[in-house]
Amino acid sequence: MRQNLLLCAVILTAGIAVMLSGCGNGKQEADKPLSGVDNETIQTIMSRKSVRAFTDEPIPAAYMETMLKAAMAAPTGSNIQPWHFVVLTDKSKYEKVFENNFNMRIFNSAAAVVVFCADTTVTRPPRDNPDGAPVTRPNGTWRDDLGACTENFLLAAESLGLGSVWTAAYPYSERYASMKRELGLPATVLPYCAVAVGWPANDEQPKNKWKPERIHYERW
Amino acid sequence: MRQNLLLCAVILTAGIAVMLSGCGNGKQEADKPLSGVDNETIQTIMSRKSVRAFTDEPIPAAYMETMLKAAMAAPTGSNIQPWHFVVLTDKSKYEKVFENNFNMRIFNSAAAVVVFCADTTVTRPPRDNPDGAPVTRPNGTWRDDLGACTENFLLAAESLGLGSVWTAAYPYSERYASMKRELGLPATVLPYCAVAVGWPANDEQPKNKWKPERIHYERW
Repeated sequence: MRQNLLLCAVILTAGIAVMLSGCGNGKQEADKPLSGVDNETIQTIMSRKSVRAFTDEPIPAAYMETMLKAAMAAPTGSNIQPWHFVVLTDKSKYEKVFENNFNMRIFNSAAAVVVFCADTTVTRPPRDNPDGAPVTRPNGTWRDDLGACTENFLLAAESLGLGSVWTAAYPYSERYASMKRELGLPATVLPYCAVAVGWPANDEQPKNKWKPERIHYERW
Repeated sequence: MRQNLLLCAVILTAGIAVMLSGCGNGKQEADKPLSGVDNETIQTIMSRKSVRAFTDEPIPAAYMETMLKAAMAAPTGSNIQPWHFVVLTDKSKYEKVFENNFNMRIFNSAAAVVVFCADTTVTRPPRDNPDGAPVTRPNGTWRDDLGACTENFLLAAESLGLGSVWTAAYPYSERYASMKRELGLPATVLPYCAVAVGWPANDEQPKNKWKPERIHYERW
């Protein structure tokens, strides 16, 4: 009798311990980090690194779609969404597309190379002008939209266990001319960057770039 | 006796249930999403939205530091890290800093406005030149680094429950002249953008910008 009661007490205590500790480290904290200054998103941002060597394993279509959804969720001035994406997986075409590109070795080992493009001619809605015709406003921030768009893609890749590296195209015409030609881009569309993505072959680690001296309070 | 054994069985079952269900939704799955195409980082990216109205609650210093650490973890061409940050919380100075800026209403309600700046003169290491002096190479991608840097900050804010909005400064000199002057920026440093950040006053929802037609396979 007493033994059984003791056994009950032990099991009950264990159950409560599990609820308090085990689950305490789980979903609830992930939704609302207890520390308030760390969570999985921040861990992904801090662990993202450039990966330049990949295994032969392909990227599941659902993974690529998720990364492109993340890319298209980026902030965009006046909601212009100037981005387009060319997803390359046919390595036999890389030599021509990335003619004279010093990143060829990286591209050739990647399961996919995504060329981020921008239609630079999409403008903001004209501003009403009481004194006459509406004022047309060119899009001055397509490059900033593409930067945020590319970073979203890289972070989504990191969060899925994929590796990636951002290689600049624009403003280096000597690098992007062959992309524009071989990918058949419309005259108004510029290749912004080429991102190689795949399963990491090695164990690259992120750089520590934290420099508190870059932070200025109220003024420089 | 039998009652006690029954009680033990019930408690034991409950304990096991807690371990299987309660914790099953927790840490382990958060680390390794079961679907493989969703996780907390992707949820943060998809739920980030522009927040333009804030409560009076201040931002804890640890939160601001975490967001700036995330910003400095951005990819940066040739590891140049051209970014600097001016963190403003003294609303009495906003009128002068953001002179004639149509976003003043947003800034005035924000607990902080962070002006993202770029030192555009930091160059890439010279390339060796067997035929003569090393070839100096200007930094052609500082603007792309700042775009990724700003997006990291916005995502960190979203993940911490804060709201933020990216307002462009560069290339609009009519907008950034007063920032440069009032913040005492060095001649070589440009204000790239101003991000208002604080605790959301309302319940803004993200836009759905998913456009599969923007994806081209192998060529346009």
